[in-house]
Amino acid sequence: MRKANIGVVGLGVMGHNLALNFERHGYWVAVYNRTAEKTRNMIASAGPERRLIGTFSLEELCANLERPRRILLMVQAGQAVDEMITSLRPFLQSGDILIDGGNSYFQDTERRHETLKGAGILYVGMGISGGEEGALWGPSLMPGGPLQAWESLAPMLRDIAAKAEDGEPCVDYIGPRGAGHYVKMVHNGIEYADMQLIAETYDLLKRALGLSAPQLAEIFAEWNQGELQSYLIQITAEVLRKIDEETGQPLVDLIMDEAQQKGTGKWTSQNALDIGAAVPTISAAVDMRILSALKQERVQASQVLRGPTQTFRGDPEHLLHLTRKALYASKIIAYAQGMGLLRQASQEYGYNLKLDRLAAIWRAGCIIRARLLSDITLAYQREPGLVNLLLAPVFREALASHHNALREVLKIGLDLGIPMMGMSTALAYYDAYRSARLPANLIQAQRDYFGAHTYRRLDREGIFHTQWT
Amino acid sequence: MRKANIGVVGLGVMGHNLALNFERHGYWVAVYNRTAEKTRNMIASAGPERRLIGTFSLEELCANLERPRRILLMVQAGQAVDEMITSLRPFLQSGDILIDGGNSYFQDTERRHETLKGAGILYVGMGISGGEEGALWGPSLMPGGPLQAWESLAPMLRDIAAKAEDGEPCVDYIGPRGAGHYVKMVHNGIEYADMQLIAETYDLLKRALGLSAPQLAEIFAEWNQGELQSYLIQITAEVLRKIDEETGQPLVDLIMDEAQQKGTGKWTSQNALDIGAAVPTISAAVDMRILSALKQERVQASQVLRGPTQTFRGDPEHLLHLTRKALYASKIIAYAQGMGLLRQASQEYGYNLKLDRLAAIWRAGCIIRARLLSDITLAYQREPGLVNLLLAPVFREALASHHNALREVLKIGLDLGIPMMGMSTALAYYDAYRSARLPANLIQAQRDYFGAHTYRRLDREGIFHTQWT
Repeated sequence: MRKANIGVVGLGVMGHNLALNFERHGYWVAVYNRTAEKTRNMIASAGPERRLIGTFSLEELCANLERPRRILLMVQAGQAVDEMITSLRPFLQSGDILIDGGNSYFQDTERRHETLKGAGILYVGMGISGGEEGALWGPSLMPGGPLQAWESLAPMLRDIAAKAEDGEPCVDYIGPRGAGHYVKMVHNGIEYADMQLIAETYDLLKRALGLSAPQLAEIFAEWNQGELQSYLIQITAEVLRKIDEETGQPLVDLIMDEAQQKGTGKWTSQNALDIGAAVPTISAAVDMRILSALKQERVQASQVLRGPTQTFRGDPEHLLHLTRKALYASKIIAYAQGMGLLRQASQEYGYNLKLDRLAAIWRAGCIIRARLLSDITLAYQREPGLVNLLLAPVFREALASHHNALREVLKIGLDLGIPMMGMSTALAYYDAYRSARLPANLIQAQRDYFGAHTYRRLDREGIFHTQWT
Repeated sequence: MRKANIGVVGLGVMGHNLALNFERHGYWVAVYNRTAEKTRNMIASAGPERRLIGTFSLEELCANLERPRRILLMVQAGQAVDEMITSLRPFLQSGDILIDGGNSYFQDTERRHETLKGAGILYVGMGISGGEEGALWGPSLMPGGPLQAWESLAPMLRDIAAKAEDGEPCVDYIGPRGAGHYVKMVHNGIEYADMQLIAETYDLLKRALGLSAPQLAEIFAEWNQGELQSYLIQITAEVLRKIDEETGQPLVDLIMDEAQQKGTGKWTSQNALDIGAAVPTISAAVDMRILSALKQERVQASQVLRGPTQTFRGDPEHLLHLTRKALYASKIIAYAQGMGLLRQASQEYGYNLKLDRLAAIWRAGCIIRARLLSDITLAYQREPGLVNLLLAPVFREALASHHNALREVLKIGLDLGIPMMGMSTALAYYDAYRSARLPANLIQAQRDYFGAHTYRRLDREGIFHTQWT
C-alpha cells in the first residue's frame, strides 16, 4: 500500500487548498474530513491521476501515513482542535508530528505542546497566511514547536510556501512551543492596523475630494507602483474598481460599513497590554471595528451630534501627495509597533525570535506582504539588536521626510470631522517615542499625592514620597 | 466580652484608616494584622478610649465579632486574598460576611463568591476609592455581592462613606457577584484617561507657552472654579505649586517622567476588548504610561528622530481658553467611553447596573469626583436607557460648543510635535460615533477578497460573497 507523506484533517477551503498545494509539489497526501462527503467530492473532482488518498476515519488516515506521521489539522481554532487531538491520540506514536495550521491562541498551543510532549508527539503550531489563494499557490508559513519537527517538515514546507522575489521560500523555523502562533497573531494585528490606515485614507479622499470608487481605484493602483506597493493596496484598488452587476454601481459603495473580526487583532492588543508593549495603532484598528459595528447607533447619533461644517478647499493634487506620504509614514510606525511587540514577547516567552527572518518570510504569500518588508528585513539583518524599527536609518529618514505630511493630513481630518484614529495614534506614538520628556512626571506626582505610590527623581537615585499638603 | 461590629484584616494605610473611620462613627472594630507589631502600634497610638480591639490570630478576631460576622479584608489583591480566605474559613459560619476591599480582579471575585456560596458565607467584593485620606474621612464605596450582605452592611457603610453635596452617602449596592470590583476597575480606567488628558494639557501649555510649574498651578486652580472642577484638577494645581525644599525648584520638574501602573487600567482595556466595547482613550492612557516608562530609549530616540521645529506664535490667552475647552470636551468623551463599557458589561455579566447610581456615588470621596459627575447622574436619572452619554442633551450641547476647541488644540499639538494620544482618540471616538458612514465597507470588502469572510449590503438583507477577480 502506498503511504502518504502527509495527512490533512479538515477540508474546508484552507485545508483543501493546502492539500492540493502539497500534491502539486509531488507529495502523496491523505485527506480526511468529518463529513465523508467532502472527502469524496475532493477526490472525485481532483481526478484519479492525483496523489490523493481519501480516508474516512482517523484510524484509516493514520494507517495511510508514512512514519513519522505528519498530520496537518485545519479545523476551527478552539475546542475543535482539542477534540481532534483527543480523537487522533490513540493512533499516534512517539515521533509523530501534529501540526495545527489554524489561528489558535498561542497559549492554547503552549498547553497542547506541553500535554503531548510526554508521549513524544511533536506538536507544531503553525501560522498560515495568504487566504485561500495563498493556501493553494503559496502561503507564508510560520511553524513553531520542536526543532526536530521542523527538520522533518522543512523540505515539504519550503516546497509549498510562497517564494520571495529573490526566490527564498516564505517559511522558516519561528521558535519553540507557541512561537509560530504568537507570530501569526501579531502578523494579523499588523494586518488590522494596515487595513485601518488604508480605510482612513480612503475615507478622507472620498469625503474631502468627493471621489468615486473607480477614481479612488486609480489612485491606489498608482500608489501601488511606489513605496506603498503591497498586497493590501493592490486589492484595495481591485475592490474599488469592482462594479456590482445588478445595480451597475461600485460594489464597495453597497457594502455595509460594519467591520467584523475573528479575534486575532483583539488578542494582539490584549497580549501587548499584558507584556507591557505599546501597540496603539493596532488597538485603534480594533476599536474602530467595534465602533463601525454600531451602525444603527451611529446613524442616529449623526443626526444629533455636531461636527465641523467646512468643506475641503485646498488643492486636490496636493492632498493626494500628502495622503500618500501620510499613509506610508503611519504604516511604518504601525509595523514598528508590531515588531516591537515581537521583540518584547521574544524575551517574555523565551521564543528567541529572529526579527529579520520574520520580516523575510512575510515578503510574499501573506496578507501584509509589501515592499516595506524588504526594508524591514534589511534593517534587522544589519542590526539584529535594533531596539525600535523607527531607529533604523532607512525609516528614520523616511519619517523625517514624511512626518509633516502625516501632520497635515491629520489636520485636514480634524477640520473636516473625519475620524482618523489609526493615523493619529501612529503619529502620537512617534512623537511620544521621540520625546525625551513626557508629562508622566505629573502623573507620578498625582499618584503619589492620592495613593502614596512614590516616585523617582531625575536628579538623584532612590524612591521618594512627598507629603503634598 | 464586648463584641466588635466589624473586623478589619490587614492594617496597611488603607485598612488602618478604614478601621479608624468605622470607629469614629461609633462602631467597635476588631483589627488584625499578620505582623502583630502593626496591630499593637495601632492600638497604642489610637489610645485606650477608642473602640478598637486588637487581635493576634484569626481565631481571636472571629471570636471577637458579633454574628453575623463582618470582616473587611484589606490585603493585597491576588494570591494573598485567597490565602486569607483559606485561613479564615475554619472560623466562619453560615451567614457571615466577608468583604474584599482591595482592587481584586472581578473574575477572581466571581470565583471566590462561587466557592463560598455553598457554605452560606456571603462574599462581598467592594471597590474603595479615595486613597488614604478618603479611607479615613470618607471614601466612595462600591460593594457588590449578595443583596442580603448589603442589607446588613448598609448602615455602617453609609456612615463611613463620603457625602455628596446634597448629603447623600457615596455608597450603594452595585450588583451581584463581582459587580463591585468590576465597577471599581472601570472607575480606575476612567481615572487613567482623566489623568492622561490633564497630563497632555500640562505638556502642551508647558511646551507651547513655556510656562513654569507655579504659573501652570494658577491656571489649573482657576480652571477648578468652572466646569472642570474636580479632585484631579485640584491636586494638579497643588502638585504644580509644590516647591522642593532642598533645591528650591518646583518639585514636579524633578520627578522622573516614567508613569507606573498597578493593573486596573490595563484590565479595563483588556476587558473592553473582550466584551466588544470601545474605550480608546483609556487604552491610550495605558499605552502612554507604557511609552513613558521607556525613558532611556526616548532620550536616545529624541536625538535621532526628527519632528517639527516650529514654535507656538499664537495668542497665549486664546490658547488657554481653547485648551480648557478641549480638556473638558475630551473628558466628557472619556467618561462616555467608561459609562458605555459599564452599560455593556451590565448586559454581558447580568450585573443590572444602575448608571445613575454609579455616577452619584462617584460625586464625592473618590479620585474621579468632579462637577461633571452631577451632570452624568442627572442625565441617567432622566433617561436610564441612554445608549451613549454623548447623546444626553447636556453633553450634546457641551460638545457642540467645545469640539472645535479640541480640534484646534490637537492641530497645535500636531504642529509642535507634542503627542496627544488621549485627546486625539477622544475626538476620533466622537467623530466616529457621529459618522453615519465609516469606511468599514472597504475593510469588509478586503476581508471578503482575501479570506472569503462574506459581507452584508446596505441595499438588501443577506450574507454575500463576491468572486473579486
